[in-house]
Amino acid sequence: MKKVNIAIAGLGTVGTGVYQILQNNKDLLTLRSNIIFEVVAVSSRSKKDFLDPKIRFYENPLHLAQDANVDIVVELIGGCDIAKDLIHSALKNNKKVVTANKALLALHGAEIQSWVDKYHGHIAFESAVAGANPVIKAVRESFVSNEITEIFGILNGTCNFILTKMKNEKQDYKIALNEAQKLGYAEADPTFDIKGNDSAHKIVLLSALAQSSLPDYENSFVEGIDQITIDDINLAEEFGYKIKLLGIYKRLGDRVQQSVYPALIKATEKIAQVDGSYNAVLSKGSNFEYNLMIGRGAGGLPTGSAVVADIVDIATGRNKNFLFNADSVNLTKNKIIKIKERVGQYFISFSFDKNEVSKNNILDEVFANRTKIDKVIYQIDENFPEQNMVRVGLITDSHQEKDLLDALEMVNKNHIKNLKFIRIEQTNF
Amino acid sequence: MKKVNIAIAGLGTVGTGVYQILQNNKDLLTLRSNIIFEVVAVSSRSKKDFLDPKIRFYENPLHLAQDANVDIVVELIGGCDIAKDLIHSALKNNKKVVTANKALLALHGAEIQSWVDKYHGHIAFESAVAGANPVIKAVRESFVSNEITEIFGILNGTCNFILTKMKNEKQDYKIALNEAQKLGYAEADPTFDIKGNDSAHKIVLLSALAQSSLPDYENSFVEGIDQITIDDINLAEEFGYKIKLLGIYKRLGDRVQQSVYPALIKATEKIAQVDGSYNAVLSKGSNFEYNLMIGRGAGGLPTGSAVVADIVDIATGRNKNFLFNADSVNLTKNKIIKIKERVGQYFISFSFDKNEVSKNNILDEVFANRTKIDKVIYQIDENFPEQNMVRVGLITDSHQEKDLLDALEMVNKNHIKNLKFIRIEQTNF
Repeated sequence: MKKVNIAIAGLGTVGTGVYQILQNNKDLLTLRSNIIFEVVAVSSRSKKDFLDPKIRFYENPLHLAQDANVDIVVELIGGCDIAKDLIHSALKNNKKVVTANKALLALHGAEIQSWVDKYHGHIAFESAVAGANPVIKAVRESFVSNEITEIFGILNGTCNFILTKMKNEKQDYKIALNEAQKLGYAEADPTFDIKGNDSAHKIVLLSALAQSSLPDYENSFVEGIDQITIDDINLAEEFGYKIKLLGIYKRLGDRVQQSVYPALIKATEKIAQVDGSYNAVLSKGSNFEYNLMIGRGAGGLPTGSAVVADIVDIATGRNKNFLFNADSVNLTKNKIIKIKERVGQYFISFSFDKNEVSKNNILDEVFANRTKIDKVIYQIDENFPEQNMVRVGLITDSHQEKDLLDALEMVNKNHIKNLKFIRIEQTNF
Repeated sequence: MKKVNIAIAGLGTVGTGVYQILQNNKDLLTLRSNIIFEVVAVSSRSKKDFLDPKIRFYENPLHLAQDANVDIVVELIGGCDIAKDLIHSALKNNKKVVTANKALLALHGAEIQSWVDKYHGHIAFESAVAGANPVIKAVRESFVSNEITEIFGILNGTCNFILTKMKNEKQDYKIALNEAQKLGYAEADPTFDIKGNDSAHKIVLLSALAQSSLPDYENSFVEGIDQITIDDINLAEEFGYKIKLLGIYKRLGDRVQQSVYPALIKATEKIAQVDGSYNAVLSKGSNFEYNLMIGRGAGGLPTGSAVVADIVDIATGRNKNFLFNADSVNLTKNKIIKIKERVGQYFISFSFDKNEVSKNNILDEVFANRTKIDKVIYQIDENFPEQNMVRVGLITDSHQEKDLLDALEMVNKNHIKNLKFIRIEQTNF
C-alpha cells in the first residue's frame, strides 16, 4: 500500500490538532484513501511529551524541507519569516506543501506563485480561510463554472465572539475582549484579529480565487471592531440590525470591492444569525445562486481537519487545481475600487445637547439636506449623567461613501459629539 | 490544450441547465482548468431548438455510450431503467460517468459498484444530493479524517416549500401542495417527494459515504409529510418548534439510524430556520464538530453547477475518490437500527370531547402514567364547530419508540380522536 510521509512544522494549537488526527484517525484515513499516512518528522519550539519517540525532531524547521524521507511539509508556524523560507525550501526540494498561513499567501502571493511555477510545486491552503468550512475547495472546485458575484464572510471567530458578547450581555467592548482572552478565543495581543487584518488576509484569498487573480492585500480596505461601542450595537438593534465584522468581496462590473469592516446587517438575514466564535461564508454565484457554510473557524481539531483534508488531497492526487484558480500566465488583473466609491446605506450616530438644539432642528442643523435620511431614533445618552445629551441614530438612503463623507465633513461640530458612521450591508439571504 | 468531449443524456430542467452552463461559461471553465469542454452529443425525447446544430443528436441515449468521440457521459434521465443501462454501457465503453440519479445509486449501489470495479470506472454524483450544496465532496474529501457522527438534512425542496407555506400562511396541506405545483416546485405526481422517498435516496447516499458502506435503502425508515396538518404545525409552534422533513443519519455505537420523517425541531436551531425551497445539510464530525450548508437543492442552473463541477473534477483528474468512500473490498457492513429502537422525545396530539372527559383527567385516562409528559397545551379543535372538542398537544420525555407505541396502543380509543405522534429532533446547532 502506498505510504505518504508527513512533516509538521509548528506544534501550537493547529499543529497539535493535525498530529492528533493523523495518529488517532490513521485507520479511517487509510480506509478512505488506501494510503498509509505517517508523521515522520516535526519541528517546534520545544519537544512535546506526546510525540512518538520514533518521530524525528528538528529544532530548525528548515531541516524538515531537507529530510529526504518527507513527502509533504505542513507549515503551521505562521507569519512571513521562517514560514516563508520553509515553504520555499520545501518546494525547491520537491515536496508538496500544506499551510494554514493566510498572511503569507495574502501578502506574498506573487512570489509564492513564482516558486510554484519554478518548481512545479503544489501548495494547499484550505485551513487558511474559515477553518473547517471547506470554502476554498467550494470556490475552486464546486463553484468552478460560476462567476462568483459576492462573498460575505464572518472570518474571525474572536471578533464574532466579542460582538456577540457585547450584544447578548450588554458588555462593553473591553470587557468582552477580556473575556475572549480568558476563554482562549483571543490572543494576549489581539491586534491582528480586532483590527481586521486577519479577516482581510482571508477575504483577499477568497477574492483572488473568485477572480482567478493574484491576492492583492495592499489595495484592500480594512477596518476593525475596536471602535464599536455598546451604544452602536444597541441603536443598531433598535433598527432591527446586528453588527458583524464582515469580509466582503463584490464584483461590480469589471471592478471589485474587497474589504473588511464592521457592518450593520438585518437581524433576519442568515449570516447575521451566526453568533459566538463560529465562522460563516455566504457565496453568490451566477449558477448556484446562494451557498452559506457555517462552522468552526478555529481550534486544533476543526482546523486540523481541514489541514488533513489537504494532505489527503495531495496524497491521492486530487490536488489538480491552480494556486489562485488559473494558470499563472492567465491570472486576471483585478481592479479594486476605493472604499470612497462604495455605494450603499450608512448608519450614523452622534450626541447633542438638547438644551442647545431642539430635536426638531438637529438634523437640519447637522446635515442641511446633504444626506437623505431614512429613519431616526433618539435616546438619552447614558454616558452623560446629566441626561441633557441625546444620542441620535439614523439610517441613510443609499449614497456614494465619498458624498456621505463630504456631508459629514461639513457638519457643525459645535453641536455634536462622538459622530460616527458604520456601513450597512444587505445579503438578501 | 486538452479537450474533453461531453455527452448529455436527458434535456429536462437539469440537462438544459448543464448544457447552458457548458456553453455560456466555456471560457471561465477553461481559465480555471486549462481544458476545453465541448458538448459533442446529446439525447432527449425531442430535439431542442436551442441545441447547436453541430452537436450529434441521438434518439436512443444508449448510443451516447457507443460514441467513440465521447469522454464523459452525463446521465440526467433519472429512474432505474434506461439510465441504468446507459451507465453500465458507458462504463463498459471506458467512459467516465456523471449522474444526478440518487434513486439509481441508492437502490442499485451494489451492482453499480461491481461495474465500477469491473471496468475500473468512475461515477461522480455530487448533484444527486442537495443540489448545489457540495455536500458529497465535503463528506468524502473535506471531512475525510472524521467519524461522521450525525447528519441532518432538509433534502427535498418541494416538502420544505410546502411546510413553510403551511406555517407562514396557515394554509392546509393540500392548498400548499397545489401552490407548489403551480410554481413548478412540485411535480404533477408529487408522490416521490411528499412520501419522503426522494429524501430517503439522498440520506441513504450520505449515510453510505459517512460509513464507507454500500447504500442500504431497504432497511431505511421512510415517512412523508402527507399526514402533517395545519393543527400539527400550529401546536408545534406553540411549543416553540417547527416541523421539517428531515433525512437523518446517526451513528449509535456500532449501529446507525438512517431514516426520513417529519420532525419537530426547536425554532431557534439553525436548520429549523431554513425555509422555502432551500436545502440544508448539517453534518457533525469527530474533528470538525459542526458544518451547516444551505443553498439551492434543485433548479437547472444550481443543480447544473454541481454536475459541471463533477465534469471538471473528472477532466482534471481530481476524481480520485472511491464510489462509496472506501475501496469496494473494504466497504463496511452497516447495521441499521429499526425505528422502534429510536430513543427520543415525541410530540403527541389528539382531540377529546370536553363534555365526556374533563381536562384534568384526560391524560390519566389516556396514558395512565405509561408515558412521561413534559408539557401540555389544550386548544379548542376548530375542526368541530360545536366547540366541544379539545385538541391536546403534548411533548413527552425521552422514550424508546417501541415503549411509546405500546403506550399509545393501550390508549382508550373511546375517548380520543385523531391521535398522532411526530418525532422530535435536537441538533444542538
